[in-house]
Amino acid sequence: MTRLNWGMFGGGEGSQIGPAHRLGAQADGNFVLAAGALDVDAEKGKAYAQSLGVIADRAYANWQDMLEGEKNHPDRLDLITVATPNSTHFEITKAFLEAGFNVLCEKPMTMTVDQGEEIVRVAKASGKICAVNYCYSAYPMVRQMRQMVAGGEIGKVRLIVTNFSHGHHGDATDADNPRVRWRYDPAMAGVSGQFADCGIHALHMASFIAGDEVRSLSADFASTIDSRVLEDDAMVNFRMEGGTVGRLWSSSVAIGRQHGFDIQVFGETGGMRWASEQPNQVFYTPVGGRTQIMEKGESGLSDEATRLSRVAIAHPEGFPLAVANIYVDLAAAIRGEQRDGLPLAEDGLRSMAAVYAAVDSAVQDGKWVDARPPSFR
Amino acid sequence: MTRLNWGMFGGGEGSQIGPAHRLGAQADGNFVLAAGALDVDAEKGKAYAQSLGVIADRAYANWQDMLEGEKNHPDRLDLITVATPNSTHFEITKAFLEAGFNVLCEKPMTMTVDQGEEIVRVAKASGKICAVNYCYSAYPMVRQMRQMVAGGEIGKVRLIVTNFSHGHHGDATDADNPRVRWRYDPAMAGVSGQFADCGIHALHMASFIAGDEVRSLSADFASTIDSRVLEDDAMVNFRMEGGTVGRLWSSSVAIGRQHGFDIQVFGETGGMRWASEQPNQVFYTPVGGRTQIMEKGESGLSDEATRLSRVAIAHPEGFPLAVANIYVDLAAAIRGEQRDGLPLAEDGLRSMAAVYAAVDSAVQDGKWVDARPPSFR
Amino acid sequence: MTRLNWGMFGGGEGSQIGPAHRLGAQADGNFVLAAGALDVDAEKGKAYAQSLGVIADRAYANWQDMLEGEKNHPDRLDLITVATPNSTHFEITKAFLEAGFNVLCEKPMTMTVDQGEEIVRVAKASGKICAVNYCYSAYPMVRQMRQMVAGGEIGKVRLIVTNFSHGHHGDATDADNPRVRWRYDPAMAGVSGQFADCGIHALHMASFIAGDEVRSLSADFASTIDSRVLEDDAMVNFRMEGGTVGRLWSSSVAIGRQHGFDIQVFGETGGMRWASEQPNQVFYTPVGGRTQIMEKGESGLSDEATRLSRVAIAHPEGFPLAVANIYVDLAAAIRGEQRDGLPLAEDGLRSMAAVYAAVDSAVQDGKWVDARPPSFR
Amino acid sequence: MTRLNWGMFGGGEGSQIGPAHRLGAQADGNFVLAAGALDVDAEKGKAYAQSLGVIADRAYANWQDMLEGEKNHPDRLDLITVATPNSTHFEITKAFLEAGFNVLCEKPMTMTVDQGEEIVRVAKASGKICAVNYCYSAYPMVRQMRQMVAGGEIGKVRLIVTNFSHGHHGDATDADNPRVRWRYDPAMAGVSGQFADCGIHALHMASFIAGDEVRSLSADFASTIDSRVLEDDAMVNFRMEGGTVGRLWSSSVAIGRQHGFDIQVFGETGGMRWASEQPNQVFYTPVGGRTQIMEKGESGLSDEATRLSRVAIAHPEGFPLAVANIYVDLAAAIRGEQRDGLPLAEDGLRSMAAVYAAVDSAVQDGKWVDARPPSFR
Repeated sequence: MTRLNWGMFGGGEGSQIGPAHRLGAQADGNFVLAAGALDVDAEKGKAYAQSLGVIADRAYANWQDMLEGEKNHPDRLDLITVATPNSTHFEITKAFLEAGFNVLCEKPMTMTVDQGEEIVRVAKASGKICAVNYCYSAYPMVRQMRQMVAGGEIGKVRLIVTNFSHGHHGDATDADNPRVRWRYDPAMAGVSGQFADCGIHALHMASFIAGDEVRSLSADFASTIDSRVLEDDAMVNFRMEGGTVGRLWSSSVAIGRQHGFDIQVFGETGGMRWASEQPNQVFYTPVGGRTQIMEKGESGLSDEATRLSRVAIAHPEGFPLAVANIYVDLAAAIRGEQRDGLPLAEDGLRSMAAVYAAVDSAVQDGKWVDARPPSFR
Repeated sequence: MTRLNWGMFGGGEGSQIGPAHRLGAQADGNFVLAAGALDVDAEKGKAYAQSLGVIADRAYANWQDMLEGEKNHPDRLDLITVATPNSTHFEITKAFLEAGFNVLCEKPMTMTVDQGEEIVRVAKASGKICAVNYCYSAYPMVRQMRQMVAGGEIGKVRLIVTNFSHGHHGDATDADNPRVRWRYDPAMAGVSGQFADCGIHALHMASFIAGDEVRSLSADFASTIDSRVLEDDAMVNFRMEGGTVGRLWSSSVAIGRQHGFDIQVFGETGGMRWASEQPNQVFYTPVGGRTQIMEKGESGLSDEATRLSRVAIAHPEGFPLAVANIYVDLAAAIRGEQRDGLPLAEDGLRSMAAVYAAVDSAVQDGKWVDARPPSFR
Repeated sequence: MTRLNWGMFGGGEGSQIGPAHRLGAQADGNFVLAAGALDVDAEKGKAYAQSLGVIADRAYANWQDMLEGEKNHPDRLDLITVATPNSTHFEITKAFLEAGFNVLCEKPMTMTVDQGEEIVRVAKASGKICAVNYCYSAYPMVRQMRQMVAGGEIGKVRLIVTNFSHGHHGDATDADNPRVRWRYDPAMAGVSGQFADCGIHALHMASFIAGDEVRSLSADFASTIDSRVLEDDAMVNFRMEGGTVGRLWSSSVAIGRQHGFDIQVFGETGGMRWASEQPNQVFYTPVGGRTQIMEKGESGLSDEATRLSRVAIAHPEGFPLAVANIYVDLAAAIRGEQRDGLPLAEDGLRSMAAVYAAVDSAVQDGKWVDARPPSFR
Repeated sequence: MTRLNWGMFGGGEGSQIGPAHRLGAQADGNFVLAAGALDVDAEKGKAYAQSLGVIADRAYANWQDMLEGEKNHPDRLDLITVATPNSTHFEITKAFLEAGFNVLCEKPMTMTVDQGEEIVRVAKASGKICAVNYCYSAYPMVRQMRQMVAGGEIGKVRLIVTNFSHGHHGDATDADNPRVRWRYDPAMAGVSGQFADCGIHALHMASFIAGDEVRSLSADFASTIDSRVLEDDAMVNFRMEGGTVGRLWSSSVAIGRQHGFDIQVFGETGGMRWASEQPNQVFYTPVGGRTQIMEKGESGLSDEATRLSRVAIAHPEGFPLAVANIYVDLAAAIRGEQRDGLPLAEDGLRSMAAVYAAVDSAVQDGKWVDARPPSFR
């Protein structure tokens, strides 16, 4: 199997997201880093790219140069990853799709709903893959839940309750730390703080597992630290197209929670729960029966759960390999195989529509609003 | 220490609540069951009372007879417990308060807000104790949290997130079981199902730990099983007088959750969480520090946590002894000691006001409404 | 149902064990404290007994006086509990059995194997009940495991692994604290420290659940704090009559463990585990299947598990109610019902034989020795 | 940073261990698979190697051919990994060390103590790295424990209790399955079954964390399934050079345990515990204080724990990345940096000595025996 050529934007030296993507792309031997524009400081970025094995010609100063250099390159890139600051995702993603590249974009895919609609249109027109990095959906046991729902194993889904709450922004004395502050500043973060940052992962996962989409929502936002304009705590109630009731809590001031992303899915004939801090188990309860601990790697799991696990039962696989699973699916899709689980531009668009809907609802004291992108109504 | 005379309404043979109260009253040797009207079937009730050691003269056919027989009894009852069906709590409680008895009433104290206001007035006029059985608040580690908040150990409380959700009514094929059905039938349960049944425990605890009261709320109710009129799933957002943000989820269709009552309290300088299924621990995290596991019985706990624990660290104490702690405090209060933690008629009234407010909000699509009883506005 | 008359030795004001027994005896309304010699300080003991409702005539200065006063009392005691210091258990228990009383003796029942043999003989001759307070065996879910084994639900038991380890004696700077020191001083504690104190609970439970007895053992003892003569850490391997392999670790220097008593039982067709700090669940795994969480109070549990639980599923019941379950069974047995689960003098004797065997093995570098009392070989 | 050339033996298509090593070597971009002899079926192995990107010339039929082809190769291999069946480890490792290659050998490094001594001698003479894949020791939080012990944070280590027990060989009806049977057959597995397979990981970790070595041990082995010659359950008590007491239980018939490798380390001033199924936390308790949950990625961890973690706090990292950490350290060592944590040939030798000592002890009913290799006595 030939390795695929991969290019990257952002993820320069010292960034957190860069290593996660590089590990994700390389871990299973699918991709080779062939080109990159890794840093806002052009020279630093070029040097760093070369230190990672990129040849000098393909170590670029910025995305525009890279587009120029790569669009007609004989050893064409099979995939580019966009991991630059949020506000730049749209233009880079759009430009490379239009130039005929497959793209994996970090979330949020865009800053507005219109931009999201535009990406969806461009992706469709290009015939290329535009994936968005909702990587939690690539954990084997999340795929297991999705396939159990699809297979009717818990009946119609009545209720989904999901939380993505941490406490790492709970220290008011640290609130002016630039690494924290920008998230609550509309000039940098856009219309939403915590919900746009973490909540949309949870909302995506609700849809992903349920195999259904959010239709309407009602939001209650709070800024519990005075200096913040945007919310650091959000509660969103929602309804899905099929009637499923949803409850989503996302906070960054929940001191003591590390990375409390969890989801509970309750159907007519069973319930399931999963938590990102112990991602290799699902607690499944058939109605009237006992809770069973399902383990990644156990025999009889769904084909997706089995395919995306690398080591035997009870050898935990963690977050970086969930990211790697996105790349596994991308490699397969690029090679022409069907991959149903990949989060795509439509998902990125729906997230953005939900963010704007939640903001709209919150300023109207929780009024129920349509959560769908205009084009999906 | 002389034992106190105790009388009981309801809790007849085969009931669940009867044994919990008898154990609670007797466990620490404070009370002796001296009188009772235990069953709607008068003869069965009288026989059962006698089997429990009540003399024949004080085994009554109904509460009216008991009132008549006891009001001038020379060996007067020190406390009566009302554990009859919900719709009868008001009249029995009122009558016995007016006759000068101390009362412990099961929740809900009343069926309407007006009745609640009436009980508060009557209790005040009588000078007697009217307690309501919010027994979870009497767990040692819940008292610990309350005293930590009062002592400023987590700073101002920003956020409370609490859940009281189970899955025991999640089986649609069992929904017509009379033991389940009445809870969702307005003719029997009143205006609210799951929120009135379980949610108010969580709401009381939020106030109890925060040392603050709920001012306003917004509710989203759902009846996930078609035949139900009242809600089996409720989400309530609230704000306390001091600005604390609150989130409360209560469900009876959360298949796989047994009795998932838990609470998380997040302040400026720390967070805490407690769960009723593992009630002897509190997970406490100072801001910027590690999560610490606090154990019931460890040295250095607050005086209330220490006083209400009976056995050494890591010997678990459970639900029946939380009920017993209510009786411990009642005995002390009857003997003239000050007991701050006892849930009283005002708490029962506030719960009823919150139930009506939540219903009012839910039918108006989550409009924010005042959650306070009229007399407390 | 008439209450039974109960007397107590030891458990004076401020003791830990006294409240646990009083709660245990009173919680379910079976016993009334009618007589007692509660304190080594005769006057304090008499005053305290009266404060607990004992009439002056039956509040005694010591056990000899109580024997004299009670042996021909018209309102005879149905049960006496021996909760005095360990070295006195033998003589009090023997004297009262000989006088025709039913006895519940705290563990260890005796200080030597010969004394244990003597108690077994005396109990048999008297026709009275001589129970020993292995109270952990009375948790509902422990009874559940015992009945599952008896019913063949996990096949022949291959292996039992049990731990009873805590860290409360791990502070060398506190080792001279009299409350700690005596446990490691042969003059006060006898031949064994931690194994005799905690280990025998675990060994009893292994036999209790397996329905089998320990035949031989090999021990490794360590005194990890220099000033100690007796062991503060013990590992005991054993074999049961039916061939089951056993492993038992008991430590008092395991800093961070609170009260880590747990047991794992592995059979041909399934495994189970239970822990005393979360006593209302059993984790059960059928061979080839998933682990299931069994909950106290769920439908379909064994009759013993159901009978000894008081409140609904997921309302935890703790240590004091396990003690109370011993009294529930004693009351039933006194009233002439059959109760298979009560730990009796034979169990107390077996424990003492195992303690001496372990000491004998430990001083011979882990030589395998017979663990049975002479009369049971 | 130039990538290092890496070669592999074993790990052919469909093997479990191959993907773990390839991911481990590639994940952080340190190594490129440049040569290999991957399968006992020469043609299959060569084809598979090429599918993984190895050029045809360096895809070999067997290790002898590879030695021939690589020993004078201009683009010399920086590291070879030996992941063939256990009985071949010795000869391949020895041959490649002698030819001047760095080697990572799967455990067990050899089948006898003499072979182990030989490898240690050869490695020393060669000046090359001979590492052994005790990969659990490369988890960030295991390194954290090691550095805390080294830094005196829990004082002198008194006691280590470790378990590596699972239930995957607990089904007697599956005991003749060839994938299971060979492990209990001396002709294939050597002198020990479960202890040699899993127990030595735990024993290595005890030494690794304590910074001390095992001096003597006493073992109790059991074959709980009749058809087995070698043990499927082992208890090993040990003493370290510095006096630390050790207890190690390893079982493969513990039905319900998935991969229960855990370790508890108790010192004079604190205790710690870690479990491989939740590897990103350490529970640490200072003497007299509360248990604290230490999280991978939290600020203030030791330099090793920080260096070997890739993503932020509470993003779990799992088993494949522990393997990858071995490769991270190998890459560094190959590049001339000092890496203290790498498990080396001496560790492999000590394990083999401990296996033979345990077997020797077990057949002598638990006699205490020297556990050290002859050359280390």
